[in-house]
Amino acid sequence: MKLKILWPGRTRNRDIKKLQDDLFKKIGHLNRCELIETKEARGIDEKYENKIMDVEAQGLEKNFGNDYVICLSDKGKEMSSKEFARFLEKLTSHSTRAATFVVGGFLGLDKRIIQKADFLLSLSKMTFSHELIRLFLLEQIYRSLTIMKGQHYAK
Amino acid sequence: MKLKILWPGRTRNRDIKKLQDDLFKKIGHLNRCELIETKEARGIDEKYENKIMDVEAQGLEKNFGNDYVICLSDKGKEMSSKEFARFLEKLTSHSTRAATFVVGGFLGLDKRIIQKADFLLSLSKMTFSHELIRLFLLEQIYRSLTIMKGQHYAK
Repeated sequence: MKLKILWPGRTRNRDIKKLQDDLFKKIGHLNRCELIETKEARGIDEKYENKIMDVEAQGLEKNFGNDYVICLSDKGKEMSSKEFARFLEKLTSHSTRAATFVVGGFLGLDKRIIQKADFLLSLSKMTFSHELIRLFLLEQIYRSLTIMKGQHYAK
Repeated sequence: MKLKILWPGRTRNRDIKKLQDDLFKKIGHLNRCELIETKEARGIDEKYENKIMDVEAQGLEKNFGNDYVICLSDKGKEMSSKEFARFLEKLTSHSTRAATFVVGGFLGLDKRIIQKADFLLSLSKMTFSHELIRLFLLEQIYRSLTIMKGQHYAK
């Protein structure tokens, strides 16, 4: 299985970026994984929320191909790390489609992206900054790959 | 209300430490907050889990005083960020006791610490590294203080 991660624009906080890069490298040692930083809506006034979400939705959806699309959403299903590892394992063994994780920008994801998703996942009932949530997702993907491969990974 | 945060030992990952320091500073601009890095069990073989947890429990509990103790636990209650902000606000207005958050070390918290808690809080059904979870907690405390004070804080 190939893993793919999509989010609009690069991570601006340097320390978060560094942690993301470290985790992404570790993930790459365990599984094929591609990170695509899609088009970010820049130079649009924040009050035009729909326009921003639409521009970013276009950038995301053109990378969906035939993938199994998992969107992070507060309306998504919560899972324990073990359940998430089993979920990823099932995707690996029963599908040749890439498993593609989609994280929204600072305004979240456009409705039509949510509608196109094969699965909605929630990492927490709490809201986190969109840059931190990227980090949490990478940590969970890494954790679940180590669980799948029976490796030790510290709490 | 005074906020207090306790966890055993310093955060070793430099980038996580940097992010924690940044958030701690921001929290300090909004509310009195003290972070105590309590005694960490060092030089004890990992196979003596009970001994490690006991040493760290001692370091934590001697800082409890008369505080309202909130332990992070996977058996705890999950809340949305807004619910968490209301929870903190109630503590502020109805109590003169410090609200003390307790995060375990890499093995988690000793049972007796959990038993002494006034409240068990879960940030996610998923398991995260104990250093990352410190960061999540600080982000949520900061977020809830901005919600309480009606400030804008980006998703």
